[in-house]
Order: sequence, then structure tokens, then C-alpha cells
Amino acid sequence: MIKLGDTYSYNITFNQNNVNVFAEITGDNNPIHIDSEFAKNTPFGRPIVHGFYSASVFSMVFGTKFPGEGTIYMYQDMKFFAPVFVEEQYVAKFEVIEVNTEKHRGTIKCILENKDGKPVIEGIAKLQNSKQFV
Amino acid sequence: MIKLGDTYSYNITFNQNNVNVFAEITGDNNPIHIDSEFAKNTPFGRPIVHGFYSASVFSMVFGTKFPGEGTIYMYQDMKFFAPVFVEEQYVAKFEVIEVNTEKHRGTIKCILENKDGKPVIEGIAKLQNSKQFV
Repeated sequence: MIKLGDTYSYNITFNQNNVNVFAEITGDNNPIHIDSEFAKNTPFGRPIVHGFYSASVFSMVFGTKFPGEGTIYMYQDMKFFAPVFVEEQYVAKFEVIEVNTEKHRGTIKCILENKDGKPVIEGIAKLQNSKQFV
Repeated sequence: MIKLGDTYSYNITFNQNNVNVFAEITGDNNPIHIDSEFAKNTPFGRPIVHGFYSASVFSMVFGTKFPGEGTIYMYQDMKFFAPVFVEEQYVAKFEVIEVNTEKHRGTIKCILENKDGKPVIEGIAKLQNSKQFV
């Protein structure tokens, strides 16, 4: 059972191999994600992880951990504040900001923070889970 | 140059192999996405594509086609209305609903429609591109 105010966090590091695979399966093969020589000449100086790959940690947590099995994804928004780099540690932080037990729905604030505690992605998710939002 | 009212569309079909790969690289290995036997006993009757994988078509189009190179992703939201299935045809439709030429920013409405023309994912994106929003 998940209640208003509950929190969860998950540590994650993205690696270049998986970023290359994400580029392949989505077709998003922009060199800024996969070509370190190209990326050297951009303002970021090195390859950055696709926004949708880095933010997919939110979705993974919702589907498999918090709330987990049976979760139906209704809504997600994402503000991309800063680039996400490979081989650096990030932490995804979650906080339940609204629960509707009648409809078995919850709203969860989600933040991806870098190792300095700075938010790089922030958003909210709306989920339905008939076992957890009760 | 991209102007207010411009539209773009992109046909896409998701295959089970790529869904399995997405599950691997994200860790979102919920059986509803990858196990057809398990999925038979769900309300959907067959595996459904991860929301973040299906919606990543928006991101791929922004980064590589419309507006394309140099796009900085600032914001995306997504309402998930209905499941997305493998091996079915979908079309991602885009419409520019706001342009700020001073800040080189644009807001784009994005819809993923199924083969019956029904929206399955809908949202807006906010992008920056100094070559296209001029």
C-alpha cells in the first residue's frame, strides 16, 4: 500500500553501450549521443544520454518497483534542465503527492538528480494501481 | 525554418525484438511487455509496448527530422490513452502550435495514432533550435 508522502529512490548509471542500443532501436542516432569525437565540439564536450532513455528510469521504477506490478501509466511530464552523461551516477527520487483511493490513482513527483544533487530532469507521473493505491 | 502551423508525420511499427531490447537496457522487464503467455491473461490479451519506448518516436523525430539537428529538448508531456501493440502500424503526427523566434523556441503538439485514427498517446513538446525557429 502506497500512501501520500511516501518516497522512493533508485541509483542509476547509464553506459555508452546501452545508449548506442537505444539509438538503434529508436532510430535516434543523432551523433551527440553516440559519437564522442562529434560530441567534443558541442557545448557539452562529450556524448549525452537521450532524454527519453534517461527518463525511462521513472517508468522502470513505476512498472517494476514503486508501485510495481499492475501499474497503469496514465501521464508523465518531464522538464529537461541539464544534460545526462554516461558513466556518471544519478539518483531518481520519487514522492507521492496525491492519492485517490476510490479510483486507485496516485500522482508521483519524480526527479533525476546528478551526483551534485542538482535536478537534471523533473516531472510528475499519474498512475493507476488497484493493489497499491487503496 | 519551421513556422507556426507546420505539420509533420511519421509512420512507425514496433517489433517484439526491439521491445525485448528496451526491457533489457532499461530494466523494465515487466512480463506484460515481453511474455506473450503472461500477456494473454491480462485485459490487453497480448504484449504491449513500453510507454517510454512508443513515445520515444517523438524524441527521435525532434532530434533527427523535425526540427532535426541542433534541437535541444526542454519539455515533453504524454497522456497515455490506450496500449500500443507490437507489429501494428502507428503514425506520429506533429503540429507547431507556438514559435518564439527571439528565443528560438517552439511548442509542438504530438499525437501517436493507431491504424483506426485513434490517439493512443498525446502531448506537447517544447524545443529550442537556433537554425529552425528563426
